Amino acid sequence: MKKVELFDTTLRDGTQAAGISFTVADKIKIAHILDDLGIDYIEGGWPGSNPKDEEFFQKVQKVKFRNAQIVAFGSTRHKDKTADKDPNLLTLIKSKVKVACIFGKSWDLHVTHALRASLDENLEMISDSVKFLKSQKLKVIYDAEHFFDGFKNNRDYALSTLEAAVKAGADSVTLCDTNGGMLPGDIREIVKAVKEKFPDVYLGIHAHNDSDCAVANSVVAVEEGCSLVQGTINGLGERCGNANLCSIIPALQIKLGYRCLTDEKMVALTEVSRHVDEIANILPNERQPYVGRNAFAHKAGIHVSAVARHSSTYEHMNPEEIGNERRILVSELSGRSNVAFKSKELSLDLENNPQLSSKIIELVKESENKGYQYENADGSFAILTSKAMGKYKPFFTLKSFHVSVEKDKQGQMVSEATIKLDVKGEEEHTVSEGDGPVNALDNALRKALKKYYPEIKEVSLSDFKVRVINAGAGTAAKVRVLIESRDPQSSWGTIGVSENIIEASWEALVDAIEYKILKK
Amino acid sequence: MKKVELFDTTLRDGTQAAGISFTVADKIKIAHILDDLGIDYIEGGWPGSNPKDEEFFQKVQKVKFRNAQIVAFGSTRHKDKTADKDPNLLTLIKSKVKVACIFGKSWDLHVTHALRASLDENLEMISDSVKFLKSQKLKVIYDAEHFFDGFKNNRDYALSTLEAAVKAGADSVTLCDTNGGMLPGDIREIVKAVKEKFPDVYLGIHAHNDSDCAVANSVVAVEEGCSLVQGTINGLGERCGNANLCSIIPALQIKLGYRCLTDEKMVALTEVSRHVDEIANILPNERQPYVGRNAFAHKAGIHVSAVARHSSTYEHMNPEEIGNERRILVSELSGRSNVAFKSKELSLDLENNPQLSSKIIELVKESENKGYQYENADGSFAILTSKAMGKYKPFFTLKSFHVSVEKDKQGQMVSEATIKLDVKGEEEHTVSEGDGPVNALDNALRKALKKYYPEIKEVSLSDFKVRVINAGAGTAAKVRVLIESRDPQSSWGTIGVSENIIEASWEALVDAIEYKILKK
Repeated sequence: MKKVELFDTTLRDGTQAAGISFTVADKIKIAHILDDLGIDYIEGGWPGSNPKDEEFFQKVQKVKFRNAQIVAFGSTRHKDKTADKDPNLLTLIKSKVKVACIFGKSWDLHVTHALRASLDENLEMISDSVKFLKSQKLKVIYDAEHFFDGFKNNRDYALSTLEAAVKAGADSVTLCDTNGGMLPGDIREIVKAVKEKFPDVYLGIHAHNDSDCAVANSVVAVEEGCSLVQGTINGLGERCGNANLCSIIPALQIKLGYRCLTDEKMVALTEVSRHVDEIANILPNERQPYVGRNAFAHKAGIHVSAVARHSSTYEHMNPEEIGNERRILVSELSGRSNVAFKSKELSLDLENNPQLSSKIIELVKESENKGYQYENADGSFAILTSKAMGKYKPFFTLKSFHVSVEKDKQGQMVSEATIKLDVKGEEEHTVSEGDGPVNALDNALRKALKKYYPEIKEVSLSDFKVRVINAGAGTAAKVRVLIESRDPQSSWGTIGVSENIIEASWEALVDAIEYKILKK
Repeated sequence: MKKVELFDTTLRDGTQAAGISFTVADKIKIAHILDDLGIDYIEGGWPGSNPKDEEFFQKVQKVKFRNAQIVAFGSTRHKDKTADKDPNLLTLIKSKVKVACIFGKSWDLHVTHALRASLDENLEMISDSVKFLKSQKLKVIYDAEHFFDGFKNNRDYALSTLEAAVKAGADSVTLCDTNGGMLPGDIREIVKAVKEKFPDVYLGIHAHNDSDCAVANSVVAVEEGCSLVQGTINGLGERCGNANLCSIIPALQIKLGYRCLTDEKMVALTEVSRHVDEIANILPNERQPYVGRNAFAHKAGIHVSAVARHSSTYEHMNPEEIGNERRILVSELSGRSNVAFKSKELSLDLENNPQLSSKIIELVKESENKGYQYENADGSFAILTSKAMGKYKPFFTLKSFHVSVEKDKQGQMVSEATIKLDVKGEEEHTVSEGDGPVNALDNALRKALKKYYPEIKEVSLSDFKVRVINAGAGTAAKVRVLIESRDPQSSWGTIGVSENIIEASWEALVDAIEYKILKK
């Protein structure tokens, strides 16, 4: 199996994404995750460009990694400086890494318009910079910025920039589609031409997703002879993102037989993807290929019954190979088989009860019209099912609640909730404060119930999401609240919908607690 | 220029996506949008599979379209029925469309496992079904389900299924990568083989995005001779989605010189993408290639200064060709050029004031550490800038507010807000109800201010978003509220961050109103 080296730039190019900002501690945490996964090179940042990246390189010196080498990013020397006096190159030395990645210009337009240098000057800048870093005993990965655009515009010049890097001693040369506009046909043809011209040079590919082809382009480049792939976890990156390593790795290793990771690490891919999103503090893309929550989710009844019989009928691979799992969605398009499958997950036997099954489908459709969705709300779906079965008995009845949020003259915020419940024939009237109105309500509810249902002490809320459904209505819009809860054994989602965010949260909270009691 | 026909299946395959559910009215609205854009075929649904789709076909009969033909979807006949008695095929006739798209099996595994038919029986089912529809004067598009997997597994049989459809009179044959697992190399090789075998057959491609290559695969298939492309707006679809027409159209037309749409309709593409997301009630993917809000967004200082000089240096195409626009993001990675560019948008002259510019960058970094982000909050950024310039004078001062939400015994929700403000030396104390606490607060604030600043009557809130920042903290999590406001001239975003959703909303509301007054 031919080895492909993985070069992750989540910590450098990934941070160019809108909405992404990592602390130094975040960056170190992600570096550990990448190292564990088996990434070969971790590009940590551009120490010459901002103090945070400089701090990262200081701190990371003391960290031991098992697989990965830390890479510092920089550019070729300034046109009016010698390499050994160039501040940018000197910060690379100062960052104490063993591997440097520097970019230089391949596109004549950029040399003249962005650098305002002559074409020959640029070749010297490339050559001098690589030579200087090599003289300092660094491994040098040379990034040929805008290589594909440059090649199309002035083929000979683009190739001569690669030659300058290679002759100066660069250990490898990465062809970059910096603007991300290439299509797979361009990549195939141009990588082939480069490989013909430089058969012995170790080539890499760095793609961006502006034409929605970054993964395809990276895979095609490897097929044509690139041995190193640059990309980011979840495709984080500027504009439309970088090439997504979470898609490239399984394509190369599972589908095309290259070696990227050990098999035992391959199953960690889904977890790595979600962990990085969590640190980046962004909502995971549920339909992300391979690792997304819906990547193996089935909604159409016809698919579900086929998948139940033979999974390869509607799945391009086994989700377990990358640590993902199959999901069956319940919705108005659902056939009986979806509801049966889902209910089985909840240990309810519906297969022998087509009438009940139809009744549940009816209830689901009705609620969906009001804005509910059960695809991420197993807990609420279980309660709906038990209602349809006539098994549902409420564990308590709400008489009233009152929530108050006050900002006083000193600017202090105080949130307080009072609730009045009937529990097993007794009236419980409790009050609690909290960090915000929903937290106060949550605290008051637990206070009222814990002596009757001590098991709820085990429940913690692990996620709380608010989604405006009809955004156009401004502050009077309808909101959907999704709560994820967990106890030591499992986790479950519940949902609430209302024009009033407090009421929607209340619904989801109640379902979360009821599901826990029901489960027992 | 070679014409490529566009076949949109947003209304059929697109509705298989998790979280998507269109009403019949939604479907008609989307059909109009697609027709306006210049789509050739609009697949409206599967009339045989659910009553909603049946209703759609009844209603759509009365609608006149300018360009598009409405297509009904179905399958080949059941193995134990004759075609003229097959209920599924009969609903296609009953739906009164002029074009039917039926799928049949190409993969031997599916024939034996899912259909439980013999390989020969399947060929007859294909042939009979196509012949029957042709005898009813319908145009027939034959979808070869799982064609690529079938071809890999049993090449001869897969080709014989196409032959059955062609000989029976199908007007065109679409090769489907139903499981979405193909890579561009597979597609190129297999489409080429089909084209060699059937040089005169009109071929189509239907790709799914499970290997993150749906767009690339569709483009490659066209290069190899497919003349019809099936896909959905924004790639909506089951699991990881269908091939995204919003990416395929510009690739084919702008980059490869095929003809898909008229040039004047090409500029509507961004609007169509956002409109469909709005109807589907999902948050647009901001980093979606070509049409996403961040598709041409620049954050890195070095890129911004280059783009300002020569836009093609960091953009693969002119965003205006598809109705999108360039955005400059302000963030901690920003150089001076981002802030200068952004300020120019707001008509502030910072270019000659590097000190002020540094001060603004400082303030931005500080706020970002607390969870603020100005990338979608121009209004709040303008207020921050005016604070940095020492120009900011508050238009009013909050003394206190109190918000109360009550659910009474009848289950009625009442939300009430009181606020006390100092405005131009006067104390204003107002109270208002609303649909939820934030709406009540909004109403009370406007009530207090309108006699001093009548211009705020023009302001309406067009969007309200809530995002939990540290989701792990459950109901005590920090939330970020983003409000979009508009007046007859323009729109602006404002932001608030707090552990208390009411306080975060208040901040964003105040910025929204202050920006309006400031603007004047």
